[in-house]
Amino acid sequence: MPRGVITLTTDFGLSDHFVGTMKGVILSIHPQATIIDISHGITPYEISEAAFVVAQAYRYFPPGTVHVVVVDPGVGTARRPILIEAVKQFFIAPDNGVLSMICSCEKHKVRAITAEKYFRKPVSQTFHGRDIFAPVAAHLANGVAPARFGKLISDYLRSTFEKPVRTGKRIWTGNVLKIDRFGNLITNFHIDEFPNVRKRTFEMTVGPHSLTYLANNYAECGFGELFLIVGSSGYLEVSANQASAAKMIGCTTGTQVDLTIY
Amino acid sequence: MPRGVITLTTDFGLSDHFVGTMKGVILSIHPQATIIDISHGITPYEISEAAFVVAQAYRYFPPGTVHVVVVDPGVGTARRPILIEAVKQFFIAPDNGVLSMICSCEKHKVRAITAEKYFRKPVSQTFHGRDIFAPVAAHLANGVAPARFGKLISDYLRSTFEKPVRTGKRIWTGNVLKIDRFGNLITNFHIDEFPNVRKRTFEMTVGPHSLTYLANNYAECGFGELFLIVGSSGYLEVSANQASAAKMIGCTTGTQVDLTIY
Amino acid sequence: MPRGVITLTTDFGLSDHFVGTMKGVILSIHPQATIIDISHGITPYEISEAAFVVAQAYRYFPPGTVHVVVVDPGVGTARRPILIEAVKQFFIAPDNGVLSMICSCEKHKVRAITAEKYFRKPVSQTFHGRDIFAPVAAHLANGVAPARFGKLISDYLRSTFEKPVRTGKRIWTGNVLKIDRFGNLITNFHIDEFPNVRKRTFEMTVGPHSLTYLANNYAECGFGELFLIVGSSGYLEVSANQASAAKMIGCTTGTQVDLTIY
Repeated sequence: MPRGVITLTTDFGLSDHFVGTMKGVILSIHPQATIIDISHGITPYEISEAAFVVAQAYRYFPPGTVHVVVVDPGVGTARRPILIEAVKQFFIAPDNGVLSMICSCEKHKVRAITAEKYFRKPVSQTFHGRDIFAPVAAHLANGVAPARFGKLISDYLRSTFEKPVRTGKRIWTGNVLKIDRFGNLITNFHIDEFPNVRKRTFEMTVGPHSLTYLANNYAECGFGELFLIVGSSGYLEVSANQASAAKMIGCTTGTQVDLTIY
Repeated sequence: MPRGVITLTTDFGLSDHFVGTMKGVILSIHPQATIIDISHGITPYEISEAAFVVAQAYRYFPPGTVHVVVVDPGVGTARRPILIEAVKQFFIAPDNGVLSMICSCEKHKVRAITAEKYFRKPVSQTFHGRDIFAPVAAHLANGVAPARFGKLISDYLRSTFEKPVRTGKRIWTGNVLKIDRFGNLITNFHIDEFPNVRKRTFEMTVGPHSLTYLANNYAECGFGELFLIVGSSGYLEVSANQASAAKMIGCTTGTQVDLTIY
Repeated sequence: MPRGVITLTTDFGLSDHFVGTMKGVILSIHPQATIIDISHGITPYEISEAAFVVAQAYRYFPPGTVHVVVVDPGVGTARRPILIEAVKQFFIAPDNGVLSMICSCEKHKVRAITAEKYFRKPVSQTFHGRDIFAPVAAHLANGVAPARFGKLISDYLRSTFEKPVRTGKRIWTGNVLKIDRFGNLITNFHIDEFPNVRKRTFEMTVGPHSLTYLANNYAECGFGELFLIVGSSGYLEVSANQASAAKMIGCTTGTQVDLTIY
């Protein structure tokens, strides 16, 4: 099953030696690995941001891909490294909830990674990306069976990602999951759960801003006009044509969003 | 001809899941592809900046390389995806002028990409990088013949990149094409068209600043001194030794530059 | 020995075409090369920063790896390109001291790269990354013997990286080598040279801030509390739990740090 693709998602940035070092460790163990960066620009320590980013990308990778997610404010403490098997792919991360979005979407098995023989020695207290996660990923992508890394567990940490809550007869209250590079506000309203916005009159409010139009594409409205659109992951996004909706509205991740469907 | 090298140039940035997702799509179709990032730091929606960046890089890639350029403010509208063959390489982009610099330099053939069987389904309205450009590039690099993607067209969009204009007996007026990481001002004066700056007295003016010296290398002048130099792409650049000429002069892309040759 | 891994460390940033162009040159010569970015976010012209970054990463790469370091304010001048062999790896860079940290740690041989037949022609005056360093690295990784590139030399430039200096009976004065993405201050006090901080009472001072606690991991102290920790490279770091020590202290690279051991 493993074919040698390993993806990396971290909050390490790209200016230090951290990411390159992890890749050196991987290639030293598995020279044929294909290493793909998903993002190293996760806000430092922001587990939920990393959870969202990797959850938008994994399903586009081939079977056998090993996804490594290292946003790890608890590095060096007793929190365990875990290995999740789901949709014929593998996910390696600290047990801090960063894989919760995947667990809530897919059937999965979780193992605590305890087989120290696959670690780099000595294991530092501050860089498990280099000493635990990278070498385990390389061995796994190289064909070592998942069961060799540790036993199945059921007491792993599952963060709940808030879904919109019904707060009135026709009103649901949600929030902004992420603001992307273009300033689109990705809300936690998913089109599959709110298909009526395609058919009915609706109003989405973010602070004093009210949106009542669902666009088919970004270029449909005038420059700088705010509208709603179904984003590429299925979440409703507040967008503007060639402008940053986030700047226009002045909001951040977590900002409250209300949807009324008439 | 195709050898599996695919380059990516986008305005997606590196913090979101967009670039990683495109790579997952490519590897799912063509596991042996070698994927190279040219730049994901194009200013959002800046077609001419992307046109310049890819035009400086493509000639250094091997025959058969597939270059994918996704700066696409019209995503989801009727604008077509196109495939250009030139110098034994391939270029895939929206038909918005982003490949114009290559078309103006090289003999080329252009196809409208219409063969939906090579797209990822369903095609979103907001992320054709993932659903059209990445899978088409992967199939092309994997050996599918260009003609299989669509018919030759001649009505594709060609932006004209301004060349310097003669505005006086000895004066040409041009502008700043791009400011690079080091603050060098890359002008649209190309040494092949203005070889006399090597032999004759000249004066280049940018706002109140006047440059009369053509340096052989950056380190030749004093720290922070402004001079002209022939950049690595052949364009005349306004530079300073270990300092940002752009900050010293206070100019941006598009700023007017005048050249007088005596 | 060479296995085709080439790493790149530069101050080119990721928005221009420079890095992608170097990769195109490498793949044109050695299509099977595996190219890994260590960092392109070195502060422009900062040789000592690049020296530090590559020195933290190289030992994690497999034998035969070719490391290319291009921070090169003297590009186009008489400064030589050099090739260093050490720990069964190769290092290619301008002769400006950027490989000094490796030379001070490992047995090494140094050659001046003079064999112009391995250069891209014509060689520009401003972009030796493209015209000299990338093609030489590709040929070397492809199996050309090191001796083919030029003769051994002994007069290469060696920068000395300051070690802490004893400035009192129990006091050593050092400085901040680098501030990482998380705001940790990496000092030039190495645990191997100051093992007593693990066993004795100590005080490290940075400006008005005094640190007396050596933590085992980042999460051990309260949020925003300053402490000392042994970083993943063995240097003592001033850190805070999920906060930027650099911002809290307001210091930069080079800031003086004093250590008193009682």
